[in-house]
Amino acid sequence: MNHDTGAILVLSGPSGAGKSSLITKIEDQIGAYYFSISTTTRPMRKGEIEGVHYYFVTKEQFENDIEEENFLEYARVHGNYYGTSLKPVKKALKAGKLVIFDIDVQGHDAVQKRLADITTSVFITTPTLGELKRRLNNRGTDAQEIIDGRIEMAKREVQRISEYDYLVINDDLDEAADMLVYIAKAARMKIPSIAINEFVFAWENND
Amino acid sequence: MNHDTGAILVLSGPSGAGKSSLITKIEDQIGAYYFSISTTTRPMRKGEIEGVHYYFVTKEQFENDIEEENFLEYARVHGNYYGTSLKPVKKALKAGKLVIFDIDVQGHDAVQKRLADITTSVFITTPTLGELKRRLNNRGTDAQEIIDGRIEMAKREVQRISEYDYLVINDDLDEAADMLVYIAKAARMKIPSIAINEFVFAWENND
Repeated sequence: MNHDTGAILVLSGPSGAGKSSLITKIEDQIGAYYFSISTTTRPMRKGEIEGVHYYFVTKEQFENDIEEENFLEYARVHGNYYGTSLKPVKKALKAGKLVIFDIDVQGHDAVQKRLADITTSVFITTPTLGELKRRLNNRGTDAQEIIDGRIEMAKREVQRISEYDYLVINDDLDEAADMLVYIAKAARMKIPSIAINEFVFAWENND
Repeated sequence: MNHDTGAILVLSGPSGAGKSSLITKIEDQIGAYYFSISTTTRPMRKGEIEGVHYYFVTKEQFENDIEEENFLEYARVHGNYYGTSLKPVKKALKAGKLVIFDIDVQGHDAVQKRLADITTSVFITTPTLGELKRRLNNRGTDAQEIIDGRIEMAKREVQRISEYDYLVINDDLDEAADMLVYIAKAARMKIPSIAINEFVFAWENND
């Protein structure tokens, strides 16, 4: 069935809006999916696992993949490369999986440029800026300047909500998770993602 | 909450694809909705109910509403007007309801021209043309030339599936109904339908 054709789900939103908790909550309910992981050339740290935290590759492999346009986006930070390789994404799509990206508005831009026709995007946020501040402060793990930076970033990001397909307001976690499940399931039925010409041809010829 | 803002759901697809059965199956699960009913100037027939089968109006009322651009679409058939009035649609949207249109590809065109930013559209079909023919023949209620006309219409309509947001293949009725519920629930979270500038302003100022 065409419902099993691969599709992309982009999740963006401020740090503190609850994206990670939401993803954990919905993962049993959305069918086969692949959560996009970054590729890096920096050395593996203690406790990190290949294919869980990052795909670890050599500088040569990374630069070769840049040349072959295998990166959706990449950046060089302190001499190390970080990027989103299209190789595992394409493999997952071919296997009919829903590819989930947890990326910022710039990453969303990059996905829309290359893969718009199979992409559904969701902006996840707290009901208010005040609530975001409370959540970030209540974590009690981050320094004040980190929290301030996140709040400034959030203020810039919400200005771009209209570039997204859907808005999920994470007020009640269970309710927001339900909403995200509906969007994720609908994403697989998005028209261009199910090679429509092939479908129409097969439909007519199965007489 | 913004989730309760009104939105539009357009359902199209061949007669025989099971639209009516699907709508009946999902109506308890999608929250407050308004099913769009046509307005006509033809006399009420025995057994017909105002506001259920049609809104019945005079020729003067109808032509006045045409002039005031209150019709999404209308046609004159055998001297009587038939059309989709925007008045009840606007009222339902204001009340935060999901407005459901069961219309053909031309009707979908008209909705996209006037109300694209709050509209989610779904094309519903059988898995194959052969299955459509079987279903139409098994009904046993229609003359062969009616059935043939529906099949020709279906062949033209499937050519325009790519104009829709989602495709639901009604193979198993329960499964198709679930898919439609997901799409209907997601439709309420579609970004432009939830007055986004107002949301961002309120978000920032609830500090």
